[in-house]
Amino acid sequence: VTLVEEVLEAIERYNLLKRKEKVILAVSGGPDSVAMLFLFLRIKEIFNLKLVCVHFNHGLRKEADEDEKFVKDLCSSLDIKFVSEKKNVKEFFKGDSLEQTARILRYDFFLKIANSLKIKKISLAHTKDDVIETVLMRIIRGTGIQGLRGILPLSKIKGKIFIRPLIEIEKKRILDWLKKEKISYQIDTTNFEDKFFRNKIRLNVLPLLEKLNPNIKDTLFNLARISSWNHNFITQIAQKELSKIKRGEGENFLIIDLEKIKDLHPFLLLQVLRLAIEEVKGNTRRLDWRHFESILKILQKKRSYLNLPGLIIEIREKKLILKSLQGVNFRYL
Amino acid sequence: VTLVEEVLEAIERYNLLKRKEKVILAVSGGPDSVAMLFLFLRIKEIFNLKLVCVHFNHGLRKEADEDEKFVKDLCSSLDIKFVSEKKNVKEFFKGDSLEQTARILRYDFFLKIANSLKIKKISLAHTKDDVIETVLMRIIRGTGIQGLRGILPLSKIKGKIFIRPLIEIEKKRILDWLKKEKISYQIDTTNFEDKFFRNKIRLNVLPLLEKLNPNIKDTLFNLARISSWNHNFITQIAQKELSKIKRGEGENFLIIDLEKIKDLHPFLLLQVLRLAIEEVKGNTRRLDWRHFESILKILQKKRSYLNLPGLIIEIREKKLILKSLQGVNFRYL
Repeated sequence: VTLVEEVLEAIERYNLLKRKEKVILAVSGGPDSVAMLFLFLRIKEIFNLKLVCVHFNHGLRKEADEDEKFVKDLCSSLDIKFVSEKKNVKEFFKGDSLEQTARILRYDFFLKIANSLKIKKISLAHTKDDVIETVLMRIIRGTGIQGLRGILPLSKIKGKIFIRPLIEIEKKRILDWLKKEKISYQIDTTNFEDKFFRNKIRLNVLPLLEKLNPNIKDTLFNLARISSWNHNFITQIAQKELSKIKRGEGENFLIIDLEKIKDLHPFLLLQVLRLAIEEVKGNTRRLDWRHFESILKILQKKRSYLNLPGLIIEIREKKLILKSLQGVNFRYL
Repeated sequence: VTLVEEVLEAIERYNLLKRKEKVILAVSGGPDSVAMLFLFLRIKEIFNLKLVCVHFNHGLRKEADEDEKFVKDLCSSLDIKFVSEKKNVKEFFKGDSLEQTARILRYDFFLKIANSLKIKKISLAHTKDDVIETVLMRIIRGTGIQGLRGILPLSKIKGKIFIRPLIEIEKKRILDWLKKEKISYQIDTTNFEDKFFRNKIRLNVLPLLEKLNPNIKDTLFNLARISSWNHNFITQIAQKELSKIKRGEGENFLIIDLEKIKDLHPFLLLQVLRLAIEEVKGNTRRLDWRHFESILKILQKKRSYLNLPGLIIEIREKKLILKSLQGVNFRYL
C-alpha cells in the first residue's frame, strides 16, 4: 500500500473530507506538515479541494523566520495561497507553560484565518507517533479513559473542524517517503511542545517498552482507538442522562436536580458531572480525579460549597449548582 | 493511619467481609501472605471470623518444602487450621506457560478446599504493587479497558469469592510493618509468575516512569480504579442489551438475532459480543482486538464462518451463532 493510499483510507475511515471542500493546511515547514501539503496535492483532484496554507511564526527560535520563508516560497512555487502571522509568544507568556501559550496563540490564529476566509476545515499534520507519545504521556502523568484517546483524527473547536489525515502513519514512513520523493523540509525544531517530557518518552520510555513488546506502537494505538470508542459511547449515554436531570441553565451556570441523580451508577454520575462542567466551563482541564472525588463527597450533604479550578459547585435545596468563574473560555487543546 | 486501619478501610470500601464469616487464607509463606495472616488475626475478633490457612506447594523450587513447613509450623503456633497440597507443576505443564499452569493448579486447589470445607471466601495477598505492575504489563502487552482494571479487590470464580484486602497497600509498607512487628517470613521467591516480564517492569520500567512522575504508582492505581468503574458500568448496559438480542442458548452455544444488533453503537456491540463469548466459552482469553475486528467484518455478510481460539462463529439466516470448542472451561485468572 502506498502512503497516498493509506492516507486516503484514513480519510475514508474517519470521514475527514467531503468533495469540493476548502481546507486550511497548517504547515510549520517540518517534515510532517510538508508531507501533508504534498499529499494534499496528490488527492486534491480526487476530492476537488481548494487549499490554503497557513503558517504561524512563534518567534521563539532563531530559525523561525527561515521556516516561515521556506513555507512561503514553497507555496508560491506550488501556486497555493499562503497566509502567515508572526507573534512573539514570550510576550504573551504569563508564567503558565510556554508550550501551552504557544498552542493557544497558534490555534487562535488558525481559527481567525478560518473565520475570515469562511473555511470550516483545518488540517494538522499529527502522526501515529504523536498519538502514541501522547497516550504514554497521559498514562504517566495521569489520565482517565478520555485522555487515553490520545489525539483524535477529527475534533471540533469553536465551530471549526480540525482533521488529522496522517494520524495512522508512522513518522518514519513519512521521512522515507519525503526522501524517496526528493521533497525538502526544514529541520523539525518547531516541535517544542512539552519538549522535555516528550523527548524522555521518545528517547527513553518507548525504546524500553519496545524491548518488551516490539509491536508496542500498534498496541498503544489500539488502546487509544478502543478508548475513543468507549468514551464516545459513554458520552452519548451521559448526554442523554444530563438532559434528563437538568433543572436550569444559563450563560455560565447549570442546575442539576439532586433527587434525580441519587440512583445513577457512580461511573455514569461522574460522566454526567464531567459533561455538566464542560458545558459551564468549556472544558475539564485542571480538574483531576481528586476534584471529582470531592464533588462526589459533597453530594451527600444538604448544604455545601466547593471551590474548584475555574468553577464553583454549590449544594442548596436539593439542587447542585455549577458556576463558571471565567467569563471567556480561552483554552483549546 | 495504621496498617490495620488501612486494611479495614479497604475491607469496608470494597465490602470484602461480613460478620461471622469463614475465610480461607492462601499463604505462600512470603511477606505479603504472612502479613495478611497476621492482619487477619488482628481483625478476627471485630468480624468474628473463622480462619483456615491453605498452602499450595508447586514443587518448583528447592525451597518449596521449606516454605510449606514454615507455614505449617506458623499455623500450628497460632492455632489455625492448616491444609496443604503438593503437586509437581512440571508434570501438568504442556508447553503452555509454566506460570499459567501453576496458577490453574493453585486456584483449583483453593476451590477444592473451599468446596470441601463449605467456605465461600478465599483471601489472597495481592498488594498495590501487584496491581500497578499488572496494569503496566497489560498496557505494554496490549489491553482494553477491561485489562486496565489490573487485579480486582473482589472477584467471583465458580461460585467462590476471592478477596484481596491488601490491594491498596504498598509492598514497602508491608515489609516495614513486618519488621516493626518482628514477624518473620520466607524469602519471596514463590513469585515466579511471569517472572521475567514482571521483573523488567519492576526493575526497569517503573523506576524510569517514577523519574517522570514521582507519584506514578497512585497515578496507575487510579487508572485501574476508573477503568473498573467504567468496565462495570459498560458491562451492566451490555448485559441488558444481550438479554434483548438473544434468540436461544444451550450448554455451549448461543444464538443472537442479527436484525436486532444492526443499530447498536459499535462499542456496545463489541461489549455485547464479549459477554456472549464469555457465556459460551467461559472467558475471552486468547481473543484480541483483531479477532473482534474479524467478527465485526463477517456481521455484514449473509452467510459466513469464523474460527477463533476455542470458539466458532457462524452467520446463517439472520442469526449469529456462537459455539464453544472446549467441553469444559479450565482457565481462571
